[in-house]
Amino acid sequence: MNKKPDLLIKNIGLLATPQGNRSLAGTDQRQIKYIKNAYILVSGQDIVELGEDHELPSQNISADNITIIDAQGLLVTPGLVDAHTHLVFSGWRQKELALKLQGVPYLEILKMGGGILNTVRHTREADLAELIKNGEVKIRRMLAHGTTTCEAKSGYGLNFADEIKSLKAAVELNKLGIIDIVSTFLAAHAIPEEYKNNKEEYIRLIMEEMIPVVSENRLAEFCDVFCEEGVFSLEESRLILECGRKYGLMPKMHADEINPLNGAGLAAELEAISADHLIQATDAGIDEMAKKGTIAVLLPGTSFYLGENFARARTMIDKGIPVAVASDFNPGSNPNESLQLPMNIACLKYKMLPGEVLTAVTLNAAAAINRAAAIGSIEVGKKADIVIWDAPDLAYIFYRYGTNQVKMVIKNGKLVGQGN
Amino acid sequence: MNKKPDLLIKNIGLLATPQGNRSLAGTDQRQIKYIKNAYILVSGQDIVELGEDHELPSQNISADNITIIDAQGLLVTPGLVDAHTHLVFSGWRQKELALKLQGVPYLEILKMGGGILNTVRHTREADLAELIKNGEVKIRRMLAHGTTTCEAKSGYGLNFADEIKSLKAAVELNKLGIIDIVSTFLAAHAIPEEYKNNKEEYIRLIMEEMIPVVSENRLAEFCDVFCEEGVFSLEESRLILECGRKYGLMPKMHADEINPLNGAGLAAELEAISADHLIQATDAGIDEMAKKGTIAVLLPGTSFYLGENFARARTMIDKGIPVAVASDFNPGSNPNESLQLPMNIACLKYKMLPGEVLTAVTLNAAAAINRAAAIGSIEVGKKADIVIWDAPDLAYIFYRYGTNQVKMVIKNGKLVGQGN
Ligand SMILES: [Zn+2]
Ligand SMILES: [Zn+2]
Repeated sequence: MNKKPDLLIKNIGLLATPQGNRSLAGTDQRQIKYIKNAYILVSGQDIVELGEDHELPSQNISADNITIIDAQGLLVTPGLVDAHTHLVFSGWRQKELALKLQGVPYLEILKMGGGILNTVRHTREADLAELIKNGEVKIRRMLAHGTTTCEAKSGYGLNFADEIKSLKAAVELNKLGIIDIVSTFLAAHAIPEEYKNNKEEYIRLIMEEMIPVVSENRLAEFCDVFCEEGVFSLEESRLILECGRKYGLMPKMHADEINPLNGAGLAAELEAISADHLIQATDAGIDEMAKKGTIAVLLPGTSFYLGENFARARTMIDKGIPVAVASDFNPGSNPNESLQLPMNIACLKYKMLPGEVLTAVTLNAAAAINRAAAIGSIEVGKKADIVIWDAPDLAYIFYRYGTNQVKMVIKNGKLVGQGN
Repeated sequence: MNKKPDLLIKNIGLLATPQGNRSLAGTDQRQIKYIKNAYILVSGQDIVELGEDHELPSQNISADNITIIDAQGLLVTPGLVDAHTHLVFSGWRQKELALKLQGVPYLEILKMGGGILNTVRHTREADLAELIKNGEVKIRRMLAHGTTTCEAKSGYGLNFADEIKSLKAAVELNKLGIIDIVSTFLAAHAIPEEYKNNKEEYIRLIMEEMIPVVSENRLAEFCDVFCEEGVFSLEESRLILECGRKYGLMPKMHADEINPLNGAGLAAELEAISADHLIQATDAGIDEMAKKGTIAVLLPGTSFYLGENFARARTMIDKGIPVAVASDFNPGSNPNESLQLPMNIACLKYKMLPGEVLTAVTLNAAAAINRAAAIGSIEVGKKADIVIWDAPDLAYIFYRYGTNQVKMVIKNGKLVGQGN
């Protein structure tokens, strides 16, 4: 032990964690390290030691010189990492629910000023302070449900000023220290009304005006594109992502959600860090991703909420793609900040095993946002982002559902929340 | 106002409630009474006055002589009523999850001692005190999610002593005053191992030994049967339910969940208060139920969790059946105490409108357990079981999902819980 510990988590019934500093694929994804009756020692923000209770050196460990958290014999896992969210927006869209239930098509709702255009309007109207304020409510709810790091995309500004404002909001939210927030630039989320007959000009704006400023001001680490029929084509996606990479933004893609354009193949070709959604990913696209180790970020909550098909997670795992599971939290297709129900749905619908899903929402998710060296597992040297669950074992949190199963959250080495 | 009020709920942004003392069918089911900027006055356990804020008589209303709850401009509805739960059991079944995900058939799991037999074994092993203790955890979680009354079935004892013990546990849980619990006798839930080659004898035991004792000791108000292929046939169900009725137990039925036996038709013929599940209900069965006003208790959480089809709620509503929505909380097919996700699924999958679902989990659910005169709506003379939601309007709680949306719960006229 190099550093003097200041926090002891003791009486852990079962510690369950994937291991390593990179994404896990194939059968490795289900390799969970278990320690029964475990303890974890933390110094500052970092895990400095862990082991079985009986190995705990009793010297220098007393309530006088260390904070002690009693895990009450419960399950402990790494903090959850949510690798795909549209965190920054203003306004909810409950008014559209009854229309949708009565079968009004999405295009009709758009014509009424609803759909994504509604969120764009409200996000543009909101000032930076308001975006930060309503974002804080959302990240506190995430934290209460076990998420200690999330990715956050822009994409409801759709013009220079409001995309930059959205990214700044994420930067400011990150500074609050509630959860860690990793930013993605997604001006290519939709074609704004003003450019609906001049998409080329909007793409030029993204590439020539926005990306350089985002890069120069370090407002994002990733560049993302919604590659889909009627939105951005494969060729347009390639242009934008290659431009982003030139400026130091790693590529990510919304790929093959609705139509099988083979966004998966493009993501692999561009060596994107992840391709997301992938409901319609082709066998060829999956093979390309497997070859390059592109991470599949699957979004089961969205499939559930929209009544979509479910991505072929088992095929992806069997072919050796590292699979992550994320919330896709957003006001249109997944108005739910919690990763817990997506974790259940990953079991129920993808037929992923509990251990596979645990890796998918911790280490593989961390890898999908380039953080696998720092978070995503409970290991010496990693950050002490830890969840204590109201559960006796790992299977339990995937079997039970519909209520918040988090008992306590340790973020940056500090106890920050208690559920139940 | 007859009684002196001792509680004021003020600053209600929107009060939303069905109205009346009986189940609502057809287009009536979606008739919600809305009051903006409302107040509610409570005396003891009862609602004694309600109206718009500006009508509130200021005389005699001060913090000196009355408890004031500020609803913060939020949505207020009646407390939720969960009309179908298997509350009383011991043991969870997370160990079966991985088997199920890997495609092991339920019959194989039964052979390994899993499935319902596992719950029966643990429930038999548990003494009364243990059933009460673990039941209390469950009803507190229900309450935190807005449920102020639930139905509770026996059915994991499957012998004289353990069925009686289960019903006694429900009676004792009710006495705790946390939520109201209405009991249903369901020894005809499965064929116990001891009688698997002698079902007639088990039916005789139910009818001649159990029912008289249940009735005499007022241990239940309803008698229920799992009418299904391989469990209890239509004819056996009829015998048991008619016997129950002779002893004062109102009939309920698990009907047409897996196979279209026309349990719906039998429920209507027997004038059961409700028929539940109904995924495979036939058109003829639905017509019979509509004719008799039999309440359909639909269980969308179970359909979701098991990957079953969804009951034809829209057809039922269109044909004039009063529809209730319940959790079916149980350790096998719906390990979730909260009614909130079933409410979301009722929208997403049944295409029920928010107002229809609100009635389904309040007034119609109350009617399905013979309590519509006392609870299920916010009206003068009814019990002050009330939920304050972290929501600005009714659609919002059906649009958002995956997190607990309850802000405060008032049970029996007392503030008992705060969420978020
Ligand atoms: Zn997205
Ligand atoms: Zn049931």
